[in-house]
Formats: sequence, structure tokens, C-alpha cells
Amino acid sequence: MNEFELIARLTKSLPTNASVVTGAGDDCAVLDLGIPEELILFKTDAVVEGIHFTSETPPQKIGHKALARCLSDVAAMAGTPGAALITIALPKDFEATFVEKVYEGINSLAQRHGVAIVGGETTTNPERMLISVSLLGTVARGRQILRSGAKIGDAIFVTGELGGSLAGKHLDFEPRLAEAQWLASHFPIHSMMDLSDGLAGDLPHILNRSQVGAELLKSALPIARDAKLRAESNSAAKPAALAALTDGEDFELLFTVASKHAVALLDAWKKQFSPLKLSCIGKIVAGTGISLRDKSGVHKLNAGGYAHFAGSTKAG
Amino acid sequence: MNEFELIARLTKSLPTNASVVTGAGDDCAVLDLGIPEELILFKTDAVVEGIHFTSETPPQKIGHKALARCLSDVAAMAGTPGAALITIALPKDFEATFVEKVYEGINSLAQRHGVAIVGGETTTNPERMLISVSLLGTVARGRQILRSGAKIGDAIFVTGELGGSLAGKHLDFEPRLAEAQWLASHFPIHSMMDLSDGLAGDLPHILNRSQVGAELLKSALPIARDAKLRAESNSAAKPAALAALTDGEDFELLFTVASKHAVALLDAWKKQFSPLKLSCIGKIVAGTGISLRDKSGVHKLNAGGYAHFAGSTKAG
Repeated sequence: MNEFELIARLTKSLPTNASVVTGAGDDCAVLDLGIPEELILFKTDAVVEGIHFTSETPPQKIGHKALARCLSDVAAMAGTPGAALITIALPKDFEATFVEKVYEGINSLAQRHGVAIVGGETTTNPERMLISVSLLGTVARGRQILRSGAKIGDAIFVTGELGGSLAGKHLDFEPRLAEAQWLASHFPIHSMMDLSDGLAGDLPHILNRSQVGAELLKSALPIARDAKLRAESNSAAKPAALAALTDGEDFELLFTVASKHAVALLDAWKKQFSPLKLSCIGKIVAGTGISLRDKSGVHKLNAGGYAHFAGSTKAG
Repeated sequence: MNEFELIARLTKSLPTNASVVTGAGDDCAVLDLGIPEELILFKTDAVVEGIHFTSETPPQKIGHKALARCLSDVAAMAGTPGAALITIALPKDFEATFVEKVYEGINSLAQRHGVAIVGGETTTNPERMLISVSLLGTVARGRQILRSGAKIGDAIFVTGELGGSLAGKHLDFEPRLAEAQWLASHFPIHSMMDLSDGLAGDLPHILNRSQVGAELLKSALPIARDAKLRAESNSAAKPAALAALTDGEDFELLFTVASKHAVALLDAWKKQFSPLKLSCIGKIVAGTGISLRDKSGVHKLNAGGYAHFAGSTKAG
């Protein structure tokens, strides 16, 4: 049993109660606790030394990343973050000044987004540092955007550029809170999530929960400069388009909207958020899974689809 | 710098916002998110293999303990738990059935207390399992009981019995939710917290935040059978009264109430919760720190005070 199969089994029969609007399986849980105009968003996310950062990572960036990942999930629901608890599990030989600098990164980002840090705990994890962030946010009733709302014919959009995040972006990205709130208040967005495991890994969450498929246009993928540079400088590296699909840790917004709104949305976006890119990368179709259209035709993106990249030019 | 000094430094300048009623430093954070009659309680707590449980601990009990610790903190505010997120960091060689049994323990306790499990995540912690639980609860506005409300002359109470928890109770204790809610709705409780680090370690939190001292009566300490048995069977073990003060992981309620209510409270408690013990163990006094009264006089409970136990009989 792999991790995804395990999660599927664990989440099949979780206890619930009347407050639960959306439980496990979306970017945040959504709860109705009786706030007249709002619902509550509830999210937790952990970063682990050696996996999400290294012993060389500047501590401020570790703190930034730990909180930013959670904020990105609140953004993906079109929500507003409110308060966070920080759990830091520390090796036995931790240096206090290092932990203070981790908090500098957390506090600085929190302040920028009006988030209160209301406690947490320090505990021991002898071999490596682990930081788990719990976040509460709010969203106007009915304004939360789920993964499950994609409809056949929707245009698929992604903010920013994809791939190559490990070159630096994964440590200092800014969660797309303002962008997501603007999207939700100006256009009838059908589905949204943030990209943490790569477009090819994450889009299936929208497709599965919405019971639809997707056709992506390879030439429309916004490939980050870092992904292109790596592909060009190293013949053993992933082709750039494959990096954009699979590198992960992009923390951009992926969303779908009825195609009739696509042009107006792109125009309005440019006025509001330029130079941040917004790309229409494909459409929602009947069926399941992701297909990728390139000059040679349409390829199902699975084991065979990825193999197709191996034969493609690195510039993608 | 030790852990407590570090926490003091970290929590001195945390970002805040208008929703924060009580931030870091109490059993839970208290937030006002606009629910007409209620405030929100927000808490996170982690258990780590090798520290809070061992590789021999039955997985259901690990899950039970992980959630029960958080529920105990909501109880300490006289709150009602609502929804939890579960973060499990797993060693590389984890067994799926083990994790499923951890969840059995979590789910069973959650169901008994009406708590919804609304998601979380699994991540990797190569050397040992770590479980972090995030909990949301609610409390009627103005009904939350803080650590900071103790007043000179208050009687100090503790539920249940103290010490020897490692013999088993720390893995299967039932959080005192019903008891705390009953206390808060029937008596003007001034301060309350749950006991996790031992009476001698935890009571100072109430004293410091309330700017008062305490005088405990050694003969009134409710010593658990497991603490007595260990003291009697092993001459190298702590004296039983010292175990009751310092063993930790009791997860009982510690609270103070004006002494004029003490007798009525004890009577009403017996009718409601017998056979669960409730003990009046001392009083709040002017000054700072804990003093312990025994047959030989009153001793300040610090390095010297603990030393006093070494010379006392183990039966305490």
C-alpha cells in the first residue's frame, strides 16, 4: 500500500459532525461554526528537514516556507487567513538563535498577511527539525472554491510559471492570497487548488473530484526560467516542459472557469496583476485523466505520456 | 537558553490581529471570529515516538493519546471540541495496518466526544513516528476559564489522582471534558488548566499568570495507586508524594475557586461524578511560587523543597 492508497483508506470512514461543510480531501477543511456571513477554513501542513529544506537552508526561509505553504492552501479556497499555531520539533542540539530566525521568517510573512501567531509548542525530534503549522482562515459563505466544481468545457488556468522551484522559489514564494480573492470576487471560478506536487500530480485531484478529464496544450505551459536553464545546461536533466509538469513546489493557483469568461478574465488579470503571468493551458473534457496535445497529436499523460518527453527536445 | 527561556523569547513579539482574545500561553488560544454566542478555541499538540510513546505501544493507544492530549486542553478552557486535523509523520518502513490502528484510536475517542476528523496529512520523518493534532473547539462567550484568574484566598482543587501515569494512564486517560463544562456552568471557577507536566511544574503557570502564590497541603495530595505501588516496591523510586507532584502526564484538571464555594462544590461534585475523586489540595496566597505544608512546617517547593522529599518517608 502506498501513501495515497493509505490516505484513501484512512479518510473513508472519518468521524464527522454537523459543523463539517467539506472534510478531508480539499485544500482546506471547511466548517460552519455559526459565523453569520462566513465559513471557517482549517488547514495543517508540515515541513521536515532533509525533505522540504536542508541543514543549509537559511532559517528565516524555513519559517517562511512553513507558513507560506499553509497560506497557499487558504488562497486555494479563496479564503483569508486569520490565526496560526506553530509546532516546532527540535533536535537535541538545537541553537536558540536558529529557532528565533525561523520565527523571524514566520512572523514577517504573517504580518504581511494579517495573520496572528497565537501559540503552538516546541517538542523534541532528535534527528531533524520538523515544523507543523496549523492555520485558521475564513471565507464568505458560498464563496469557497473547491476542487470538485470543474465542468466540461471549462478553460484551465495557472498563475505564474511552473518547474524548477527547487532552484529557490520553493523557499521564498509569496502565497497567491490577493490573486485568489480577486478571482473569486470577479469571476465565477468553478474549481481551484494550489500546486504543490506539480501540475501532473495535482490536476488529477480536480479531475477526480469533479469526475472529468483535461486536455492540456503543451505549448501553452508557462515554463519557469529555472526549469529551462536546468534543461539547457544539463543533458541529463528533465526536458523543461516535463519539469513544469512534474517538479512540484510551484505554489501557484490552478483553476477552471467557463470558457466564455476566459478572454475577459485574461484582460482583467493583466490590468490587475501584471507582470504576474496568467496562462490558459487547456480545457476540461469528458472522461478521466490528463491528455497532452503537442505538434504530434494528443497523448494520454501516464507512464506512456511521460515516456514521450524522453524523445522530445528539451526546449519542449 | 533552555526550552522555557526560548519560548518566553519567541512569544514576546508574535504578530497579532483583532480576532485574538487570548494568544500564546494558555491551554488554548481564544479567538473571536464573530460567532454570536461563542468564541473559538485553537490548540495543537504533538506526540513523538521514544518520548510520548515507544515502539512497543499499541497503535490504538498512540492515536488515543495524541487526540486526548488536545481534548484535555479544550477541557481546561471549559470548552467543547469540534474538529481536528491529524498530521502523521511516518518512518520510511511504516506499516499501513499500524497507521490504520492509530486512526482507530483517534476515531474512537473522537466519536465519543462528537469531534469531526476533517483531514490532515501524512509526511515523512525517517527515524520515528510523530503525530501532531490540531483542534478547534468552542466555548460560550465569557465562559472560557484562563490560567490568569486565580485570586488570593481561592481554594485549589484537582480532579482524580496524581502520579504514576507512566504505568498506563498516560495512554488511555479520558479527557475531563464533561467535568470541566459542568464546573464552569455551576461554579464561578477563577482559573483552570490541565496537568501535563506534573502539579509542581504546571501550577506555577497559574501562579505566574495570576501573580499569586500557592500553599499546598502535602497530606491532601491525591496520590495514585500506581505511584504508591512503585514507591513501595522500589526503594530507589521517588517517594509517592513527590511522584504525585512531579511525574507528569496526569491529564487531570487543576482549578481554583473562591473558598466560600469549596464545600458546596465538593458536595455537588460527589453527586455528579462519584467515584471520580475531587480534592482540595491547598489555597492561593500572596507572593510567588509553591509552598508545601507538612507535619514539620511549610517548605518552599524549589530545589530545597524537593530535597526535603528525599528525607521523608516514601508513603509521603
